[in-house]
Parts: sequence; structure tokens; C-alpha cells
Amino acid sequence: MTAMLPETPLGVALIGTGFMGKCHAMAWNNVATVFGGARPRLEVLCDAVPDRARALAPQFGFARSSEAWQSVMEDPLVDVVSITVPNGLHLPLACAALEAGKHVWLEKPMALTLNEAAQMAASAASRPDLVTMLGYNYLRSPAFQAMRALVEDGALGQLYSFRGVYDEDYAADPDLPWSWRHTLQDGGLGALGDLGCHLVSQMIALMGPVAGLCAQTHIAIPERPSATGMTPVENEDSAMAMLRFASGAQGSFATSRVARGRKCHLAWEIHGSLGSLRFDQEHMNEFWLHRRGEAGFTRHLTGPDQPDFGAFCPAAGHNFGFNEQKVVEARDLLQAIAGGPACGPDFARGHEIETVIHAMARSGGQWIEL
Amino acid sequence: MTAMLPETPLGVALIGTGFMGKCHAMAWNNVATVFGGARPRLEVLCDAVPDRARALAPQFGFARSSEAWQSVMEDPLVDVVSITVPNGLHLPLACAALEAGKHVWLEKPMALTLNEAAQMAASAASRPDLVTMLGYNYLRSPAFQAMRALVEDGALGQLYSFRGVYDEDYAADPDLPWSWRHTLQDGGLGALGDLGCHLVSQMIALMGPVAGLCAQTHIAIPERPSATGMTPVENEDSAMAMLRFASGAQGSFATSRVARGRKCHLAWEIHGSLGSLRFDQEHMNEFWLHRRGEAGFTRHLTGPDQPDFGAFCPAAGHNFGFNEQKVVEARDLLQAIAGGPACGPDFARGHEIETVIHAMARSGGQWIEL
Amino acid sequence: MTAMLPETPLGVALIGTGFMGKCHAMAWNNVATVFGGARPRLEVLCDAVPDRARALAPQFGFARSSEAWQSVMEDPLVDVVSITVPNGLHLPLACAALEAGKHVWLEKPMALTLNEAAQMAASAASRPDLVTMLGYNYLRSPAFQAMRALVEDGALGQLYSFRGVYDEDYAADPDLPWSWRHTLQDGGLGALGDLGCHLVSQMIALMGPVAGLCAQTHIAIPERPSATGMTPVENEDSAMAMLRFASGAQGSFATSRVARGRKCHLAWEIHGSLGSLRFDQEHMNEFWLHRRGEAGFTRHLTGPDQPDFGAFCPAAGHNFGFNEQKVVEARDLLQAIAGGPACGPDFARGHEIETVIHAMARSGGQWIEL
Amino acid sequence: MTAMLPETPLGVALIGTGFMGKCHAMAWNNVATVFGGARPRLEVLCDAVPDRARALAPQFGFARSSEAWQSVMEDPLVDVVSITVPNGLHLPLACAALEAGKHVWLEKPMALTLNEAAQMAASAASRPDLVTMLGYNYLRSPAFQAMRALVEDGALGQLYSFRGVYDEDYAADPDLPWSWRHTLQDGGLGALGDLGCHLVSQMIALMGPVAGLCAQTHIAIPERPSATGMTPVENEDSAMAMLRFASGAQGSFATSRVARGRKCHLAWEIHGSLGSLRFDQEHMNEFWLHRRGEAGFTRHLTGPDQPDFGAFCPAAGHNFGFNEQKVVEARDLLQAIAGGPACGPDFARGHEIETVIHAMARSGGQWIEL
Repeated sequence: MTAMLPETPLGVALIGTGFMGKCHAMAWNNVATVFGGARPRLEVLCDAVPDRARALAPQFGFARSSEAWQSVMEDPLVDVVSITVPNGLHLPLACAALEAGKHVWLEKPMALTLNEAAQMAASAASRPDLVTMLGYNYLRSPAFQAMRALVEDGALGQLYSFRGVYDEDYAADPDLPWSWRHTLQDGGLGALGDLGCHLVSQMIALMGPVAGLCAQTHIAIPERPSATGMTPVENEDSAMAMLRFASGAQGSFATSRVARGRKCHLAWEIHGSLGSLRFDQEHMNEFWLHRRGEAGFTRHLTGPDQPDFGAFCPAAGHNFGFNEQKVVEARDLLQAIAGGPACGPDFARGHEIETVIHAMARSGGQWIEL
Repeated sequence: MTAMLPETPLGVALIGTGFMGKCHAMAWNNVATVFGGARPRLEVLCDAVPDRARALAPQFGFARSSEAWQSVMEDPLVDVVSITVPNGLHLPLACAALEAGKHVWLEKPMALTLNEAAQMAASAASRPDLVTMLGYNYLRSPAFQAMRALVEDGALGQLYSFRGVYDEDYAADPDLPWSWRHTLQDGGLGALGDLGCHLVSQMIALMGPVAGLCAQTHIAIPERPSATGMTPVENEDSAMAMLRFASGAQGSFATSRVARGRKCHLAWEIHGSLGSLRFDQEHMNEFWLHRRGEAGFTRHLTGPDQPDFGAFCPAAGHNFGFNEQKVVEARDLLQAIAGGPACGPDFARGHEIETVIHAMARSGGQWIEL
Repeated sequence: MTAMLPETPLGVALIGTGFMGKCHAMAWNNVATVFGGARPRLEVLCDAVPDRARALAPQFGFARSSEAWQSVMEDPLVDVVSITVPNGLHLPLACAALEAGKHVWLEKPMALTLNEAAQMAASAASRPDLVTMLGYNYLRSPAFQAMRALVEDGALGQLYSFRGVYDEDYAADPDLPWSWRHTLQDGGLGALGDLGCHLVSQMIALMGPVAGLCAQTHIAIPERPSATGMTPVENEDSAMAMLRFASGAQGSFATSRVARGRKCHLAWEIHGSLGSLRFDQEHMNEFWLHRRGEAGFTRHLTGPDQPDFGAFCPAAGHNFGFNEQKVVEARDLLQAIAGGPACGPDFARGHEIETVIHAMARSGGQWIEL
Repeated sequence: MTAMLPETPLGVALIGTGFMGKCHAMAWNNVATVFGGARPRLEVLCDAVPDRARALAPQFGFARSSEAWQSVMEDPLVDVVSITVPNGLHLPLACAALEAGKHVWLEKPMALTLNEAAQMAASAASRPDLVTMLGYNYLRSPAFQAMRALVEDGALGQLYSFRGVYDEDYAADPDLPWSWRHTLQDGGLGALGDLGCHLVSQMIALMGPVAGLCAQTHIAIPERPSATGMTPVENEDSAMAMLRFASGAQGSFATSRVARGRKCHLAWEIHGSLGSLRFDQEHMNEFWLHRRGEAGFTRHLTGPDQPDFGAFCPAAGHNFGFNEQKVVEARDLLQAIAGGPACGPDFARGHEIETVIHAMARSGGQWIEL
């Protein structure tokens, strides 16, 4: 398992200390504990708020802190940069890191606009010696890895259709104040950018490329309270789409940030000629498989039979956690840097994901060929 | 509860003795047992196969048998006709019954073509003294009745979106032989006609009228074995659609007859400003409600608090059955005949349902305004 | 399927018109509709309240009504008597019916005391020409029938252990008024008599005879409001037991009428050398089977593969109902009367069930060998 | 949140590098990342196999390795010792650590025999300046912490009964070879020691002290293959018990290591005068609460409203993992060492847990007062 991991420690910088910054920090601290290989050197923790960087660096196990991301890029002790800053900064930081010769681990969504994503993909393409990876962590759960292998191995036969949703309720309350997140300029897409891109990342990993789509979006709560009164919301609260895959299969797709009661309902079902598969991220430690001739769906409970559960715990049913998906992601990144199998989604695949969600955003009910 | 039921017995004829014919027979035998009122007279059981009608009449509790539906229509002892014959015969039988002055209880789908449905609706409109009802029995489960009341009472607030599917796997096996059911001429629509119309019946009961839709269909298994070799399938194995409701809400819709492992997965979810609701007919004795401020979804188990559970059993959790939905339907029909509240869907509403599924069938990915 | 059913109609009397009386009435009206055979003649409906019998007889489809059960027993047109009166009357009515040469279908629990049950079993033994059957309807669900067959066919291998509960909450409210049901004299056992006996009926059908047990009981709400103030409750609100089966397997057992939120939680799990099985009556249309080598538990959804689902509906997933269990029970009774396979539980088996629950009631924490 | 955490780093030794050793290592690496406070110094990793300790120390982030636990105890840089060695070594290592003035974090079960546990408790009692903690990690899940708070706050009212099981299937295969684990001498108790003690730890945290119990045990697979043929199994494959709590409530209890299909089925239900609560560790990110007057059980999905979810992830529904329970445990230990609230179970409470499971093991169907 550790054959592909680096034998000499890599130097790590982490830029951004919010929710996902902490998640990256946890992963960097334990990737070697779990998977072996040389333990990364946690060199610099960077945050634009100096006190915050200074306070958190020792807590997160980093040797130094910084308030200037530009200097981090020039740091010769840094080999790989984790970028978990607000989405509007993804473009400059990622490109600077690549120009400085650093491997890049970037949180999703890739960028605010499709144009930015294209620039980033071009930047990555110009440096094929560097590894880029986007933080689509839901691709790393043992359940998802096992399901993807089942599909690739033909357990479902020819794929007929995909039905996917990703619903949460973080914006369901009309009293949630207006913020820059509700603008196209600074927030970019709404539910599609926050949630939909995750569903796309799983969908194309399972079903292959999207050939065409037709979508509609909805702003359920058209204005929200701000300091200056009620201010309009510019990006979508929800979106839905129909799709045609290059394979000939068809798909339905929906996402919402105003779905009361849903917390992480990234859920989908695939029907194939030989069987069906279904999954819900709220129950990330199980999936349901039905094969031709069986009496019903069987609940597969996450365990060491599924990659990479066993590295964390040898006993099935003991529950893999959200944050542990990130540790697998870190392992994949380290393997790719060490010359092991390519990990994904890289910036090229990230651009493909962005192409899909931006097509949904602009479809307005018309078909778009991709 | 019995105030609106007929005080003098109505004479009943049942035409058709298959799956749904038996279901009607069970309902006619027990509607008075359960709800009171005058016990219907079961006058004639009719089937084109004389031996079959003759053998089943005493078993089903009917006084006489017949092989000629025309004579049934002229029978002066018959007040109401249950029609459960193949779909291609719905038009002539229903119209003949109305012309003969009989109330009509007709199984879904209403007709093979939208034109037929329009004729039938016109025929019913010309006889406002007669009651027509289509057998959308899933509208009668205690769970559905309770959920509809919750939506009507505003428990979910303003409705944002509907997500619905109805999937079964009765045609998932490619070895299932070709039959007239797979032709447009004799079978009419495929999954939309068998399954989709049920989902539409619930959707419009909950969300109100459809303003527009865009759909695509799929023939997953393009040909099936017949006596003369492999023969093409003409109607859809699956369909999916996006919808806009007159209310401004949006909807997604999908149905399949080739969804391996699914048996009666008529399932949907509604998001509103104040709460969410979800349901799956495979678990017809429960629904899930989340209201603003609550910790999660609450499982409501069917019981006497939900209409009309208590007439069948006074104890919650004891499970209402598929066939009992039909008994409620019979009660509603009898009430309407006795001058009580209108029951539905009548032929006008049935035509509206057909309009939606036929629009889906012909959309070809283009928006259709309704 | 109909080979064993009577070819000439049997005359039926139903005594008692409460919850279970109505359930019997529904079954008598549809047993031939569903299973064929000669349609029973519904001769007399009897209730101690004359108006009630008179009003309900036509509603329930009975030819006549009566207020005197004694005369019903002497009625030459009556072949079989359904007894659904209060438990304290089971002994005299059942014995009178047997003495009068009638077959007897009696609701559970069999009797108020073990002594009464013994008298009734002796009475039945003296008339081997007559069929007796107790209304343990949960034995007739398609799921239970399928599970029993799996166990009998050795699908679980050697049985190791049984874990069973039956919990409801009908007495959970301390404000529920005191009644004669809370006395040993008139109410007999508490949760054990109402609920526990159902669990015993399933347990011994699956696991075989009980060799010994040790139990404790609990009166959670020691007194309840009555017209004369707070009055003591005499019978148990809950009970739990450990058991040893004659086979060497072990069992745990619990029942409660004060389990808030539980409505019909008759649930159990069996572990065997080759697999495990689990079930919950609140989800009576599914069971869960795991066999050695499989990835998890498979959800078996009720359908025509399970006895006797197909006679009611040809399509899996369409949900069998509580009342339909009673129709199967009626069919079994009619078959036994016609000389077909013995149905159960008869009075001998009923006495065995009573022996177990009365042993639990008196155990006081001491082992009792049976 | 960090107020009670040490301000100066504590030195840590970890003895044992198996399943739970790795789990402790992950926790030590991230306790400060997650909760703040001074980051512990990971001083020594110790394993009896020198190569293993040497190889894993850098992987696990420890500064040094050792093959001699005795020297670890004397190490002045070590303040706290994590002990995850085989159960037979718990007594000498824990006592040595206490004698050397180290705080002790010991995996369960505490000891092989009740006598050993008593010695260990006495040893801890003699050093009240040192903190002892047993690794009952299931007490730390957000769901359990929230449920315990609900019970303590009276949300269930007066507690009537507890129903608990802990079933797994790790020994269900009769071909699983015999080992020292199947002996009383070296393995100690069977299912009770491995699994039952976890259930007891939760049960007494929720229900309070056990006043008396009556239990039976079972060796389902009496002999297993070994190098010398079939060798007898000495400790129990399963056990079940009835209990009386000091509060007057009653309980049922069962555990098995031969329950096919069950992976981590630590599941229980509590009935109280005001509500009911149920939980299953296989679904550790949810629990079900019913309160008087509500329509059913509500599924509470783990999120930041439950302690200590928010320190790991701010978003509900994102799933807490098995290993993260251990991070909370480490935080509690560090807090207790820093003079914060006592954490548990300490050795005194551990002895109480052992008292219960050993009473079950020796009960032989007789009541034992505790």
C-alpha cells in the first residue's frame, strides 16, 4: 500500500484556516499515520489575518505562520500547497503556485467563472511536471470507491439511467442575511457551485462524459435582509437538469440549498441492464446494490472490503468519517507526486466539471451540447 | 362518516376479471362493511371469456355473469359500472356506459391516445348527472390523504420544488417477450402510461397545475424476442422531465419500467418555505415530515389520525394495504353518487393527467406550454 | 390453490362487532373473492347490544342479527362461529360452540387464566371432528410465512439465539383511565396477554418448544385515575424474559404497553450458523435476510414469491395489509374444515402459548421448567 | 472550548501498535488540531517487536521508539501513557505506569479477571493525583453525548426500561481457528469482554447503577480447529441478561460474537414516562427520539448541535467517524489532567463495568445482587 508514497518528506503549506483549512490540516497530520510513507513536513500555515495564522500554526502542527500567500509560494521548503481560501482567490493563488513550481491541492469549486477555470486548466497544462488536485472529497469514501469499481467492472451491465440530487438547507431560512455569497460577481454560482459540482464529480466518474443537457434554475428567496434593507439574491437557490451521456444513457439532476431538513443529501441511483445501485452521502457508510436474480437490495455496510477503509480500521460497521475522506485524498496526492497513479480530479477534469455546471446555469431551459 | 353514503343499494356491474378486476371485486364486497351505508347489489360480472365470468361470478359475490359488455350497459338493475378491461377498450366501454346512463369507475390509464381521452372527457361533460372516476388508488392511502391535507393547510409554506419518480422493474429483463403492449397502436404509452400517470396524479394534487414541461424518453431495450424473431419496441421504457408549475414552483420527474430492484417506487419529495415532505409508496404506511425548527425528519406511521385508516383498524402501525386504497375509492364514488363531495379524478381531471404524460411523450427535449 | 377449499358453502356466525369483529367480517366477505371455493353463507351477526347487531348485520353482509349468543350456537344453519367478544367470555362461548358441534375461530388471547385455557383445550380435544383456530393473524403475513419456510428449510442452519420484543404505547399515558382491563380478575394478564402472546406464537413457530424460562414483570404506572380516585393497576405494563428452547438455543423476550412511540413493534432477530433473519411488524411488508458469504442484509420486499401475496395482488412492493392477514387465516380455517392441512394455532397450541406467558407472569425472576 | 486544555505540552508514550494503537496515534496527532491547547509531544512509541516500533514511530509521528515498556515508564519526558497491548498485560502495565506517576489511558476491557480489575482500581485509588481513563470510545460520539444529555435533562421523564444488544459476527464462522482468545486463562471473557462491556458502559451512563441481574451464557461453537485438531472453546460466544436498576427500572441485555451479518450492532432503546430514545452504533450519526404528543420518532442527524461535532466540522449530516470518537476521548483526558472536569470511565468506574459483566458470566441463570 505504501509503495507509491514519497520516501522523503514533502514540505507542505496550507493557505486558509476555515472549515476546509482545518480539514486539510487534519489530513496532513495523519496521512502518514494511516498510510505510511515519509511524514510530510508541515512548513507554513498562512492566513490573511496574522493573529489567526500565528495562533493556529502550533495548534495545527505547522512550523511557521505567514500572513502573505505570495511569500509562501516562494518558500523553497514548500513542495505542495493546500489552498482553502475563498473561491474568488482560487485563480491567482493556484496560478502563482504552479508558476512557482509547487504542486497544488485546491478546494472546490475550482473558480467563480468558467473563464477562470479555463485559465487555471491552461496553467496546469503548461506544467505537466506538477500535480494538481481538486478537493472533491466525496469521491474518496470507501462506499464511493467500491461503487465506482462495481460500475467499472460491469456489475450493473449497460447503464440506462442516472438519477441524482444534492440537497442541503443551509440557505433555507429567509432570515439568513444577504452577503457577497449571493452575488454573481463575488459568489459565482449558487447551489450549483456549492453542491452541484460535487454531484457532477460523482456523476461523470460513474457515467462518463456528458454529451448534452437542458436545465432550469430557481431563486426561491429573491431577496434577503442586509444592512441597507432587502437586497436581491443573484445566484440560484436550486437547479435541475436533464442530461444525455456520451454512452447513450440518460440522467436527471437536481440540487438545492433551500431544501429544509436535508443536510448532506448527495444521493443518486443508477439503473443498468444487470442491476441497480443507490447511495446517500448522509448515510455514507452504506450503499445498496441489487443484481439480477436477487430478492431485493442488499445493504453493503462500509468495511475493510472497501478501499481504503482497512487502513483506518480493520472492523466493518465502525463508520468512516467525513474528514477521513480527506486523508485518502492526501494519500492520492502524495502518490501522484511520487510518480504513482494519477489522482483526480486534476485541473483538466475540474474544468470539465465546471463546464457542466456553468452550462446548467446558462441553459435557461434550452439544450446545450457539450 | 356514513352520512353521505347511499341509503338504497346501488346495482353494480364489473367488467374485467384480471388483477384490477379482482381488486374492484374486493372493494365492492367490503365498502359497506368498512364504511356503512347501503350494501351495493353486485349484479353482473362480465368477461369476454364466458367460462371465466361464469366461474368467477359466485366467487366474487356477483349474482349473474355475462360475456357481453353491451348487454351489461343496458341492464336496468345496474347503476354503476366498474371497467377494468385492457386500455384499448376504455373508450368504447366508458362512452357506452355514460350513454346508457351509468356511473363509471374506470381503471387508469384513461385511454391509449390523448384524442381518445378528450372524447371521453367530452362524453362525461355531456352527462353532468353521472359520476365518473378514474382508479388512481394511490391517492387514497391514509399517508397520501394526510400529506395532501398538510400541503393544503400550508404546513410546508410556499412550495419551492417537487422531485418525483415512479420506478418498477417489470420490464427490466431483456428476455421478457415482445407483446402488443410494446406497440404504440395497442399498448399506447410505455412507462408513462403504466406508471408516470400515477405520479402525475399525485403531483398535480399536491403542486397544482403544470404550466410547462420539457422531457426526454428512452427505449432501453430496443427489441424483444417474439415468435417471429426480435421485434422492435415502440413505446418508452423510461422518461424524465423538468416542469414549471403555474404556482412558480419547479419540478423534476422520472419514471422507468426497467429499474432493476424497484417494485413500486412511487416516491417524491417537496421542499417548501416552512418544511419538507417525503414519501415512497413501497413504504406506503409512513411519510416523513420536517418543519422549520425541528431537529430532523419525523417518521409518521399510518394510523387512525390519517384518513381513512380508522375505519379499517383503530390501531396505528398495523399497516393499511394496497387493496384497501380501492375500498376508500369505492366509498368516495358512492358518496359522490349520493350527492356528497365530488370525488376525483373524474374524466376532466383524467384528461388533464393524460395531457401531461402525452406532452412528455412528444416533447423530444423541447419545452411545451400547457 | 383452491383444491382444499369447501365445495359447498359453510354457514357462518360472527359474535362480537368491535375492532376484531369487523376484521372477521371483512375476511368472511372476501375469503372466496380472493381464494375461490364456495362462498360462505353469512348467517348471523350477534352482539349483546341488540340495536348494534341489527344495524351492523346488513352492513357486514349477514342475513340476520341476534342479541343472544346461546341461540346462535343452536342455529342449524351455522357451521362455524367467529368469536370476538371480550376475553372473559371466551371460555363459555368457545365451549358452548364446541358442544353444539360448531367449528370455532376465536380471537386471542385464548382465556383470562391458564386454567380456563386448559379447560378449553380439553373441550376441543373431546371433539376431534371439529376445527378450532385462534386468531394469531401475524402468523399469516406473507413475510412471516416466507421466513418460517426459510427457517424450516434450514436457510439459517442451526439456530443459536432469538431476540424478540413486542412493544406498543397504548397505555403509556398515565392519564389513561383505570378500567376493568387493569384487573387480574377481568383483564387477566396485561402486556403479556395483549401483546406477548403474539410474540410467543411467532417464537415457537420459528424456534420450537420452550424448555424453560425466567422472567420479571413491571407495573410502570401503578395507579390510574378512576371515578373513585386513583385506583391500583394489577396487571403488568411490561415483562421481560430469558428462555431456553428444547433445541438448545437461547432466547430473550420483552413486551411493553408503555413504550412511547411504538405502535406495533413486534420485532425479532434470529442468529443461526448459516445466517440471520430480522423482522418488524411495523414494516410487515419486508424482512431482512443475511446468509453466510453475503455482503450484508438483503431487504426482501413482500411480493408474489411469498405465500399468499399473489392471491391478493400479482405485483411485488404493493403492500399487503393488516386485515388481509385475516383473510389468509379464514382460508386456512376453511381448508382445515374441508379436510385440508391442519391450521393453527388450534386450542392445544393455544394452551401451549398461554402456558408460556403465564409462566412469565408468575416467574418472579425464578426459572420455570416447562 | 480550549480553556481547560493544557497550556504546556504533555509528553506521550504509546504502547502497542495494533488496531487500537493506530487509533490512539491518530488521536494524539490531531487532538490539538481539532480542539486547540498545547500540542502534545509524541515521545515514544513502544512495541515488543523492535522492528515494528522502529518502523512505525516516524510514521505515527513519535520522536523515538522502544521495545521495552518498563523503560517507557521511567522516561521523565513522558507524562501520559496510552496502553493498547493485549488484555493480559493490562494489569502490569497500568500499575507500573501509575507507580511511575504517569497518567494512564487504557483500552477496554480493563482486565482478564475481576480480581485484576479490583487491583487496578486500588492502584488508581492510591494515586488520586493521576488521571486514569478507559477507552470506551462509543461514549464520545456526538449522538451518545446528546442522548445522555437528553436523559439527564429529563427529556424521557422517569425511565421505565432499557433494551440493549451488542452483536457482531467476527466469530460466526466455525472455521475460525482456535486461539488463546478462546481460553479463560488468556482470553478472559468472550463476547461479554469484547462487546458486552461497551454496552454496559453506555447502559450505566444512561440508566444509573445496576442493582441486580440474572444471566445465561452460550458457547454456540463448542470447539474450533487448531494445529492439534478440534480444541474446546472456553469462553462465551453469547450472553443475555435481565437487570434491575437501582432506580427501579428494568433492563434486558444481550451480546453475541456469532450474530451473522451484524458488524457493530451496539443498539438500545429506552422507554420513559415522557418519551423514548433509540440508537444503533452501525448508524452512529443518527438517533431517534419520540416525545409525548409527537407523531412518531424523529431522526436526529449528527451535527454541530451535538457535542463535539462542531469542532470537527461545522455542517450537519457530514458524518462523524469511529476514529474521531478517540480524539474526543483524548481531549477529555487532557482536560482532566489540566484540572478540568473528570473524564470517565476511570478505573473505579471500569471496575464497576467489570463487576457487571463478570456477574453475568457467572450467574448461571441465578439472580446476583450487586
